[in-house]
Amino acid sequence: MNILWPVFLLTFLYTLDTGHCYITYIEARLPLPGERAPPGAPWPLPRFWQNSSTVLTLYPSTFYLQSNARECDIIQNALKRYRRYILIDEKNGVRDLSLSVLEGLKVEVEDKACGYPKLPESYVDEKYSIDVPTSGPAVIKTKTVWGALRALETFSQLIYQDKNKAYQINVTSIEDYPRYTYRGLLLDTARHYQPMKTLKQNLDAMSYNKFNVFHWHLVDDQSFPFESKRFPNLTVFGAYTPRHVYTQEDVKEIIEYARLRGIRVIPEFDTPGHTQGLAKAFPHLITPCYGDGENPYTPNHPEHAEAEMLNPIQDNTYEFVKELVSEIKDVFVDDYIHLGMDEVYYACWESNPNIKKFMEENNMTTINEVEQYYVKRTLANVKDIGYKYMIWQDPIDNDVQASPDTVVEVWKDKYLDSKMDYWENYIVPIAQKGYKIVLSSCWYLNYISYGPDWKKYYECDPREFNGTEEEKDLVVGGEACMWGEYVDGTNLLSRLWPRAAAVAERLWSDASVRDVDSANFRLDQQRCRMLRRGIPAQPILNGFCGDYEWDLDADI
Amino acid sequence: MNILWPVFLLTFLYTLDTGHCYITYIEARLPLPGERAPPGAPWPLPRFWQNSSTVLTLYPSTFYLQSNARECDIIQNALKRYRRYILIDEKNGVRDLSLSVLEGLKVEVEDKACGYPKLPESYVDEKYSIDVPTSGPAVIKTKTVWGALRALETFSQLIYQDKNKAYQINVTSIEDYPRYTYRGLLLDTARHYQPMKTLKQNLDAMSYNKFNVFHWHLVDDQSFPFESKRFPNLTVFGAYTPRHVYTQEDVKEIIEYARLRGIRVIPEFDTPGHTQGLAKAFPHLITPCYGDGENPYTPNHPEHAEAEMLNPIQDNTYEFVKELVSEIKDVFVDDYIHLGMDEVYYACWESNPNIKKFMEENNMTTINEVEQYYVKRTLANVKDIGYKYMIWQDPIDNDVQASPDTVVEVWKDKYLDSKMDYWENYIVPIAQKGYKIVLSSCWYLNYISYGPDWKKYYECDPREFNGTEEEKDLVVGGEACMWGEYVDGTNLLSRLWPRAAAVAERLWSDASVRDVDSANFRLDQQRCRMLRRGIPAQPILNGFCGDYEWDLDADI
Repeated sequence: MNILWPVFLLTFLYTLDTGHCYITYIEARLPLPGERAPPGAPWPLPRFWQNSSTVLTLYPSTFYLQSNARECDIIQNALKRYRRYILIDEKNGVRDLSLSVLEGLKVEVEDKACGYPKLPESYVDEKYSIDVPTSGPAVIKTKTVWGALRALETFSQLIYQDKNKAYQINVTSIEDYPRYTYRGLLLDTARHYQPMKTLKQNLDAMSYNKFNVFHWHLVDDQSFPFESKRFPNLTVFGAYTPRHVYTQEDVKEIIEYARLRGIRVIPEFDTPGHTQGLAKAFPHLITPCYGDGENPYTPNHPEHAEAEMLNPIQDNTYEFVKELVSEIKDVFVDDYIHLGMDEVYYACWESNPNIKKFMEENNMTTINEVEQYYVKRTLANVKDIGYKYMIWQDPIDNDVQASPDTVVEVWKDKYLDSKMDYWENYIVPIAQKGYKIVLSSCWYLNYISYGPDWKKYYECDPREFNGTEEEKDLVVGGEACMWGEYVDGTNLLSRLWPRAAAVAERLWSDASVRDVDSANFRLDQQRCRMLRRGIPAQPILNGFCGDYEWDLDADI
Repeated sequence: MNILWPVFLLTFLYTLDTGHCYITYIEARLPLPGERAPPGAPWPLPRFWQNSSTVLTLYPSTFYLQSNARECDIIQNALKRYRRYILIDEKNGVRDLSLSVLEGLKVEVEDKACGYPKLPESYVDEKYSIDVPTSGPAVIKTKTVWGALRALETFSQLIYQDKNKAYQINVTSIEDYPRYTYRGLLLDTARHYQPMKTLKQNLDAMSYNKFNVFHWHLVDDQSFPFESKRFPNLTVFGAYTPRHVYTQEDVKEIIEYARLRGIRVIPEFDTPGHTQGLAKAFPHLITPCYGDGENPYTPNHPEHAEAEMLNPIQDNTYEFVKELVSEIKDVFVDDYIHLGMDEVYYACWESNPNIKKFMEENNMTTINEVEQYYVKRTLANVKDIGYKYMIWQDPIDNDVQASPDTVVEVWKDKYLDSKMDYWENYIVPIAQKGYKIVLSSCWYLNYISYGPDWKKYYECDPREFNGTEEEKDLVVGGEACMWGEYVDGTNLLSRLWPRAAAVAERLWSDASVRDVDSANFRLDQQRCRMLRRGIPAQPILNGFCGDYEWDLDADI
């Protein structure tokens, strides 16, 4: 990908309260590392951003948002939403009579009637341009509605308020497009049920940062909260309680909420491990682990529960998985499903005398062949249903042959197994086998640590491994993961944001945008912007966020 | 302190939904380590807790709370509050006709008309007993209103709801009193302004865990949010904005809120370091650090700002501090103030040629003598005002002589200076000098880490250092600290709770209550209880909290 770079910051000649300090820009230059970002600095950073010293003002009462694609529900909804974000402090807005007025914004979409799929698909075109001229309306140009969504987000970030609350925007020219087509965020709703409100707020936050894939780790050992109409016992026995369930209506609501924000929803239904939630309803599909090779450990015994897995030698296992995936496909409309396939405990399968017997009968000498058998048969079934799929890297590590169009998610890293190498080494053999790759190893945001740990997420680059250019091109994107062991509605959003924003910029902006000191204050501005829009993003620096601190005025 | 121990758990013969699972207790025994706590298990654990298998029920419509001390505002307010907590799910409460009814609760206070100081003081008597008999009302007996507050909290925790939402309580007998008289929690409102709502919710959470001191780290280098009427410029120049200020009315509101919950409020006004907030209004009281011994670094230059300190050789420094402390004393009614005195940068003072000259004139050979001079003169001034005081350990480490009634807070630990020893070694010389001690070293809760880190806080015991019994008796308590660099209204409460609850049990319960596996599920129950009362305490285990998950039903 070629880029137009660098950012040009031209002359700023005014003093402005941006929250953390009063800033005066008096000459044309790039901000030095560690220097505060100018007001209205976008996150993630666009490819080409020309920002002049000429400042315009917006009048809330007359500012208009128009589009040639208003008949498309995505655009219609977005214009309404972004009007709110642009004029967020409408009741306090004042006129600044000393400045020229930006009269409105026109959003010009080529495929104007949602001609492009109404659903965001893999590898959509998200390119856009923004022109804020000295006179006349601002203009967004884009091929697709998805590009329009990204552009509206950027445009909304260019607007700021001065000390007197007047809305301002600099005369600006932007050309932008993402570095990666897969910019994902994983939430886990099995270790803890995440409230619907939290899921929606998180989709909002994702859209503020141009993430475009919600990887929904729906179910796991701890619980099975996805309502199946075909197998209602899955939630009757597998959910924490009947209230800790996502009904199919709930799921559709989330998918629609995501669609309107240009976000795909990829469900994960993990097998053959991580199936204890499911096992509460269907224990006969599970093989226990055998303690002494003869007697199984007590089923569901806590110490062994996570080692127990689907039984790979029973036909009904495959039939069940196929039927359930069919039902999932009816609800989750994305073209991809994530099939998990991580952490198969060989010792557990090997301990089962029936599996041993099956291996002998089928001339299998290693348990790896059983995994191979499970993976191939399941992938074939899922392909029959018409789904494309992602899997975790584990079967590929174990030399299982998956079909070449499989997207492999690389998740292993040093901290997960101190005897092994870093992700840079894990990724190489997978790239060498030619699979498409999504990287998440360096973005396990559930592992918290003290201080500005966003910097280490920011510094991780998915192309920085020892591979050929062709191998590096196999990386289609990356994913921030928030596993659910220690998060729920109380802390998920504040723990995740703005740390995930660091990943968002890495996956959207040019690879050369890497300096944490330059990003620091711009990210702080982004966190304040998110706060202002209702996301309880936690602080990354000492200081405050203008007048829109979280809950500052609320009375107990 | 002699204790009646251990806890007796008698027969449980029913099945109950406590949130994480359906529990059946079928025989009389102590819960084994790792075993789930019975419903209605109190936190912190009382000294003596006899819990029978006989279960009573409460009828919301007829249950009464009475007291012989109703005329005391503290009791009146508490009865109202605890009625709400006891019958928290009132609208869903149903009658269980199969059980005997606990008709009400009588709170009998010896000093019934708030005869005991209306304000919680250091070393108050918090002892209480609770008797829940098979018939007749439950009875709380206590000498002081403060004991009554602790008892009401415990009583409220004994009540739970069964699967059908009927309120239940076991026939119970409790005798209880705290291990330490100082059970503190520090919040820092200078790195980030903490909203009033957050401060109040935190006081609520403290009362649920029997903390009794709110150490308010009011001001610091980053900002000065305390309104001074004598020196209004302190907030004009030192606060982030005029909205990021605690007016004296705000402070009084917090003190009153705390008083009604039996919590003292000790303000910290830190000098001679950590004074850059103050310096924005009164730069002439500050000495800059001199770069080359001749020319000062630019005042307020960010790299050196934290090293700049009050000028110890000017009389007006002492006059200013004295006047401000006088004003603080008019607002903060506790008998103690915390005077800080930590982290004096010797090199900075030493770099000032005027201080060098002062030393020569006063026959001082080391900068330590200057610190000595500052500390002694300031402590004398504060004593004149009528305040008792706490300080951080630093001057004592530097062999400064403080008056013998000083309470010294030990805060240093390995992680803060890897060249030095653990707190167990820092505390010894201070105890040997005979000062009263509050320990916070092992309870810096701002330093987060992944997973159930409450365990390490739980395991730290303030008497486990190499000292005599007399030296150990000098420890009057401990304090959980939440420094404010990375917390504000978005994440303070969820990050702090229930981790701080681990410190609360350490400071209240008997020293033998140490097993983390036994505490695990009881703490989880306490976190769910806090959640139910509106504190967004974060999860410590996989699972859920009954039907009262945070915001479970809220619509976006």
